[in-house]
Amino acid sequence: MSTVSRPDDPESDPRVKAVFDDIRETRGSDFVNELWAYLAFDPELLEQVWRDVKSVMAAPSALDPKTKEMIYIAVSIANSCSYCVHSHTAAARAKGMSDVEHADLLRVVSTAARTNALLNGLQVPIDAPFNKENS
Amino acid sequence: MSTVSRPDDPESDPRVKAVFDDIRETRGSDFVNELWAYLAFDPELLEQVWRDVKSVMAAPSALDPKTKEMIYIAVSIANSCSYCVHSHTAAARAKGMSDVEHADLLRVVSTAARTNALLNGLQVPIDAPFNKENS
Amino acid sequence: MSTVSRPDDPESDPRVKAVFDDIRETRGSDFVNELWAYLAFDPELLEQVWRDVKSVMAAPSALDPKTKEMIYIAVSIANSCSYCVHSHTAAARAKGMSDVEHADLLRVVSTAARTNALLNGLQVPIDAPFNKENS
Amino acid sequence: MSTVSRPDDPESDPRVKAVFDDIRETRGSDFVNELWAYLAFDPELLEQVWRDVKSVMAAPSALDPKTKEMIYIAVSIANSCSYCVHSHTAAARAKGMSDVEHADLLRVVSTAARTNALLNGLQVPIDAPFNKENS
Amino acid sequence: MSTVSRPDDPESDPRVKAVFDDIRETRGSDFVNELWAYLAFDPELLEQVWRDVKSVMAAPSALDPKTKEMIYIAVSIANSCSYCVHSHTAAARAKGMSDVEHADLLRVVSTAARTNALLNGLQVPIDAPFNKENS
Amino acid sequence: MSTVSRPDDPESDPRVKAVFDDIRETRGSDFVNELWAYLAFDPELLEQVWRDVKSVMAAPSALDPKTKEMIYIAVSIANSCSYCVHSHTAAARAKGMSDVEHADLLRVVSTAARTNALLNGLQVPIDAPFNKENS
Repeated sequence: MSTVSRPDDPESDPRVKAVFDDIRETRGSDFVNELWAYLAFDPELLEQVWRDVKSVMAAPSALDPKTKEMIYIAVSIANSCSYCVHSHTAAARAKGMSDVEHADLLRVVSTAARTNALLNGLQVPIDAPFNKENS
Repeated sequence: MSTVSRPDDPESDPRVKAVFDDIRETRGSDFVNELWAYLAFDPELLEQVWRDVKSVMAAPSALDPKTKEMIYIAVSIANSCSYCVHSHTAAARAKGMSDVEHADLLRVVSTAARTNALLNGLQVPIDAPFNKENS
Repeated sequence: MSTVSRPDDPESDPRVKAVFDDIRETRGSDFVNELWAYLAFDPELLEQVWRDVKSVMAAPSALDPKTKEMIYIAVSIANSCSYCVHSHTAAARAKGMSDVEHADLLRVVSTAARTNALLNGLQVPIDAPFNKENS
Repeated sequence: MSTVSRPDDPESDPRVKAVFDDIRETRGSDFVNELWAYLAFDPELLEQVWRDVKSVMAAPSALDPKTKEMIYIAVSIANSCSYCVHSHTAAARAKGMSDVEHADLLRVVSTAARTNALLNGLQVPIDAPFNKENS
Repeated sequence: MSTVSRPDDPESDPRVKAVFDDIRETRGSDFVNELWAYLAFDPELLEQVWRDVKSVMAAPSALDPKTKEMIYIAVSIANSCSYCVHSHTAAARAKGMSDVEHADLLRVVSTAARTNALLNGLQVPIDAPFNKENS
Repeated sequence: MSTVSRPDDPESDPRVKAVFDDIRETRGSDFVNELWAYLAFDPELLEQVWRDVKSVMAAPSALDPKTKEMIYIAVSIANSCSYCVHSHTAAARAKGMSDVEHADLLRVVSTAARTNALLNGLQVPIDAPFNKENS
């Protein structure tokens, strides 16, 4: 049940097909998850989102792919995005996250959420040494 | 400006001093950030929070200390906890996070926030293959 | 699956019926969505919520009805309220939001979420000219 | 530093003065916190917000005033509203919240935030007995 | 549909069985909700979460059990944790929350969310008397 | 007080200067707000963020510039991003938002936040007619 109409045959639109082909090639997999099919309701938005996600998550960068997926999960949990938690947990596992690492991730995320609430409740002034501009 | 009164001399209470000593020993540093001084308004809460944070963040576990701090930052950003973003960015740097890694972290966190909003807006049904119980 | 019991026949209660009649008249439609039937578990709460929503969303005001619904969607996305995203996307369409406007809304909302995360991570001090009191 | 201009002398507007007088009488105090002075930039919005807050927080209802303020704090922490955490912590203390109760509140709020994150990460299906409609 | 595999027979693991036995004894009920069965994918995480939840929610403390559950609901609503809203609404009812109290809780929570948004939009400076350190 | 070091003279880096020049030209103003100076700690991130914000907010699209800024404010309020609320309120005013429209925006945003909380608390099943795929 979605707020937009998923095109019946998204790849009949050449702009959409080009994005889907790039998703398959970039990920080395024939599986294209439903997000992209729904985004095809607006090919321009589809192109923008894939370009951004590809440049951040698929291009080599300072952090390794598994770590980036775990950070993505952490944010998705805090923002309560059910689809994103599912899709990026699957992605993190595909990139090597073990069950023990998953449990550790959940331990860190839930502890952070706990102290976030505590600090938002206490309203403690920020220590001067935390200011990067002092360093 | 806080919602609780910071004790003038927190370590005059032996329960508080024991926690502060353990913080210094665990972190190998004389610096105890202000969170702990404010939490000393209730020594039992102080003990519980330190015990939990220590067991998750200071004990060796599946994820390395720097990665855990970066995940902590990600959650703190999403929950808009200013103090936590500051303290854990400082901690991540102390554990080796470079400026380039910091920028990459911010890139991943902000991209995740973007697609979280997109998916919460689209309400796409979750792909069956994401169900771990199917695997 | 709800946390309250939906009354079997909400309009058998005259206070509830009065609200439902006003909803139908205000919206010019026989369709009353399920929120109101569930809220009927407490007629006073039902009356208060409808009174507030009606005064803000149905009464003429500075912003036009379609814009108000799109702002409502934006907030509901950020708060991850699935029901609200669905109901107000339907309402925005009923008030004239096109698919292209919907895509543009999602583009703005997701970009805002992205820079919100970035700024919450950077903790940049606020520029003095942004202070309305200076103007 | 605000996004609206606080009127220099808010009570020179009779609509504003009427609200301020009612705030003072309802609370039995001469202190009117700054929120209301800033809201006076739009007297209609001021009237609506005060009417709603008064009817929920000042009128006798099923929950006692101190409990209502503590629930208000809990929500304000989760939404990261610094002003609201400050003002409602002050209100809860004025209505009898002790330091020990404040610490217990923070303990419950932060534990809830922790398990909220855990469950949003696990995506556990909801147990049938939780459905109120089954009862 | 979950992100982890629920063990087929969680209590076949003695560490898990010990936690489940303690849940049943602590709650005086044979019903163990599914959260704990899913958490059994990592017995150490299961033990930690139960220990924390038990110490905060089951041990006698300054606030009474029903009030603590209502605060838990408030946080879970703000964090949009569907499972948590369901499970803690059931728990609050089991500890005596009436329908009228439930409606009052929802009234306070939703009013707080409203003014949280208002204040986050206005960015009103915090009144000096709210500073606990001034008192 | 920030988590990154603002370069003393950001425009001494030609990549940064190119972005700043484009910001000034795009906005038709010499004022470049501090976000961009701080982002200059990582020129690549600066380029990406400006490219995305420019393409969404400065390029003509289905929604008019003032409406887009008001939607941006709505999201920033819900995500509690103080800097973003300030900067986009200033931008909305620069694009024509009146005080009366600002008050109406705050009225809609805060009402949405209220019913978001209510629905997240009630967990009402979504009405079938809201499903765009049915239409």
